[in-house]
Amino acid sequence: MPVFLDTSDAGFEHGFATLLSAKREDSPDVDDVVAGIIAEVRARGDAAVCDLTGRFDRLSLTPSELRFSPEEIAAHAARVPEAERVALEQAAQRIRAYHVRQMPEDAWWTDPEGAGLGWRWTPVSAAGLYVPGGLASYPSSVLMNAVPAKVAGVERLAICVPTPDGVVNPAVMLAAQIAGVDEVYRVGGAQAIAALAYGTESIAPVDKITGPGNAFVAAAKRRVFGKVGIDMIAGPSEILVIADSDNDPDWLALDLLSQAEHDESAQSILICDDAEFGRRVVEAVEARLETLERRAIAGASWRDFGAVIVVRDLEEAAALSNRIAPEHLELCVADPEALAAQCVHAGAIFLGAWTPEAIGDYVGGPNHVLPTARSARFSSGLSVLDFLKRTTLARMSPEALGAIGPAAEVLARSESLEAHGLSVTARLQRLNRGTGG
Amino acid sequence: MPVFLDTSDAGFEHGFATLLSAKREDSPDVDDVVAGIIAEVRARGDAAVCDLTGRFDRLSLTPSELRFSPEEIAAHAARVPEAERVALEQAAQRIRAYHVRQMPEDAWWTDPEGAGLGWRWTPVSAAGLYVPGGLASYPSSVLMNAVPAKVAGVERLAICVPTPDGVVNPAVMLAAQIAGVDEVYRVGGAQAIAALAYGTESIAPVDKITGPGNAFVAAAKRRVFGKVGIDMIAGPSEILVIADSDNDPDWLALDLLSQAEHDESAQSILICDDAEFGRRVVEAVEARLETLERRAIAGASWRDFGAVIVVRDLEEAAALSNRIAPEHLELCVADPEALAAQCVHAGAIFLGAWTPEAIGDYVGGPNHVLPTARSARFSSGLSVLDFLKRTTLARMSPEALGAIGPAAEVLARSESLEAHGLSVTARLQRLNRGTGG
Repeated sequence: MPVFLDTSDAGFEHGFATLLSAKREDSPDVDDVVAGIIAEVRARGDAAVCDLTGRFDRLSLTPSELRFSPEEIAAHAARVPEAERVALEQAAQRIRAYHVRQMPEDAWWTDPEGAGLGWRWTPVSAAGLYVPGGLASYPSSVLMNAVPAKVAGVERLAICVPTPDGVVNPAVMLAAQIAGVDEVYRVGGAQAIAALAYGTESIAPVDKITGPGNAFVAAAKRRVFGKVGIDMIAGPSEILVIADSDNDPDWLALDLLSQAEHDESAQSILICDDAEFGRRVVEAVEARLETLERRAIAGASWRDFGAVIVVRDLEEAAALSNRIAPEHLELCVADPEALAAQCVHAGAIFLGAWTPEAIGDYVGGPNHVLPTARSARFSSGLSVLDFLKRTTLARMSPEALGAIGPAAEVLARSESLEAHGLSVTARLQRLNRGTGG
Repeated sequence: MPVFLDTSDAGFEHGFATLLSAKREDSPDVDDVVAGIIAEVRARGDAAVCDLTGRFDRLSLTPSELRFSPEEIAAHAARVPEAERVALEQAAQRIRAYHVRQMPEDAWWTDPEGAGLGWRWTPVSAAGLYVPGGLASYPSSVLMNAVPAKVAGVERLAICVPTPDGVVNPAVMLAAQIAGVDEVYRVGGAQAIAALAYGTESIAPVDKITGPGNAFVAAAKRRVFGKVGIDMIAGPSEILVIADSDNDPDWLALDLLSQAEHDESAQSILICDDAEFGRRVVEAVEARLETLERRAIAGASWRDFGAVIVVRDLEEAAALSNRIAPEHLELCVADPEALAAQCVHAGAIFLGAWTPEAIGDYVGGPNHVLPTARSARFSSGLSVLDFLKRTTLARMSPEALGAIGPAAEVLARSESLEAHGLSVTARLQRLNRGTGG
């Protein structure tokens, strides 16, 4: 049974604080192992990558076999059933249409002092995308990472995906093809992250690495951060559903379970303004759990981390939501826009009961890579901005330097940075001698 | 003497690669010490912060003395000479005017399938800014961090600044006052970062921590990342000047020295298309070094990490610049805009000889917190975006769900995420029974 809390109860604050601070993930400490793997790949390149792939994926490769040929990718992709191909193409098209709108604009203006100012966005030259193997090998995640990279203008996009025992996920290959990925390597784990960050004879280094992965991949990403850029380190998935009692309990039960089925550490929370309705949703969850394929995982998540919170009104719901800062927030209420305006910390908001969170995982358009573990307080989901960087621009005219240079001289002197000041002074002296321009 | 390279020489590629890979910083490994300090602050709160401040800053404080009162801030700020006050206010005004233009726009549209889509930007609720004490306690850095935070709409902005032996930098207090900082604490080091991230009885926790610091502060920021957001971990400063021979060697010498004087690990590089001109700049540097206040630091930086590179033409210069990906790039050439278009990896570009880099440190308007150590390949300088986060929004109409829901069902099934699919199916069944809407 999930936790059942009521804001009217005396013990509520204690119970809610316990819920917020529950440690859901206990990552094994693999840092030393990962440090060794990275050092090995840096020292021996392809040979190390092949050795490690043999050891971890039971796959014997020569360096020239690390990369899938275009023909191999096409052959694997061709095995995907037609309905899936159409669905992936529709998803890619919608994700692209959404992310194209995120492209930021360059700026350039001249200010009253005559200084030209602005900025310019340019894409990262090369990006690497990690795709897990096995059960969590999701073609939708390939699209969610690769499409924004290509929209941003990344010239070279490489995927690393492990193929344990040589088993390839054809839908991952198709998604890579649809998204326009340039290179695909059958390499996984920390060795893939090391190869992408430092390069080997066969795998050129990239500037930025994104994508989910297990504890080894996460530890490797942390270690190579600085040498390359990385996206966030994602934790277990979460959903918060805020609902009034004018909802179908079965719909909400399925929405709660669609996070719970990801992972035993996932968390699903319902906030409602009617205890009786809350109990009906719990019953609906129990009913669905009886037949759900992943009932072992979903049941454990719901039992250990699930919660139903009864509030007096929606203002209270919004306040609690802001303390939770959920990855996914579903608002199944009469006026979801009004409630959304009060919910300021959330990765993604799904407005109204006709917008199940699962739509956002696949075909809504917005990205499904979102901040977890309360990090929506300070971070955002993946976007084209993750594959762009901004260069600031400034151009002083002699007159502009005359107008603002003296302040720079004063501040440089006050910070005891003499050469800073002199670099302005030397120019102002020429200006004052009337030979500038 | 700095390195002198010529792209026409046979050994150039080796020399340039050596320059690129030079390890300029050898940070002491303080991670264990920092882990202990963070644990102590988490366990004992204010008492630990006071103890640590006594130990490291030789300052005996009670918890109620950790925070500067508004009267104390005003009294310290009033000690700043009038010329400095005016310069700081002009700087703040220009930084504000630049960063206001960075504010991103919210979006909302309805697509052809009838799906409402968009996103919304909201500020981080509370941010903490670390300001180093001693020699590197720069009021300009207070402005560069605090002004964007306040422009972004951060409600609560707290500063931690150590005051060793009780010595307060009045200009830092004035900058905090001008920027509208809400709280200032006389706490430094890893204990300040721990207090900001986890909170104590007197210091409420924040959501994001920015600002420069020594090895202890940097290690602490890395450790609390995830619990809170952090900005980049800045390395030693760098400048690349690309100049034709139609320049005053003394101006360029001062620009090179204005980075070199920051730190013995700083790096200043000149690229020019005329070896004789390059030698004249080196002579000008030597001449200025004879009298410069910080000649010991600047001289060591220039000797150990400085470089002059002679190229055949500006295209070659741009290609090398892109491999260096400099923090600061000064283009002292006839058509700096044309050259800037080719230089795609740089934190900030200064266009033309009348735009010394030092202008950007103080009063230009763009931020002076910029990516170092080649990270301009994948990251950007500080901006209002560092104090904002984006929530994606989606609202399906029943018709929109009817149009795109089936693709989500197919993809959920292919990824073996049954509840995901069922959450769509349950709604489509109602729609198909004609009772939706």
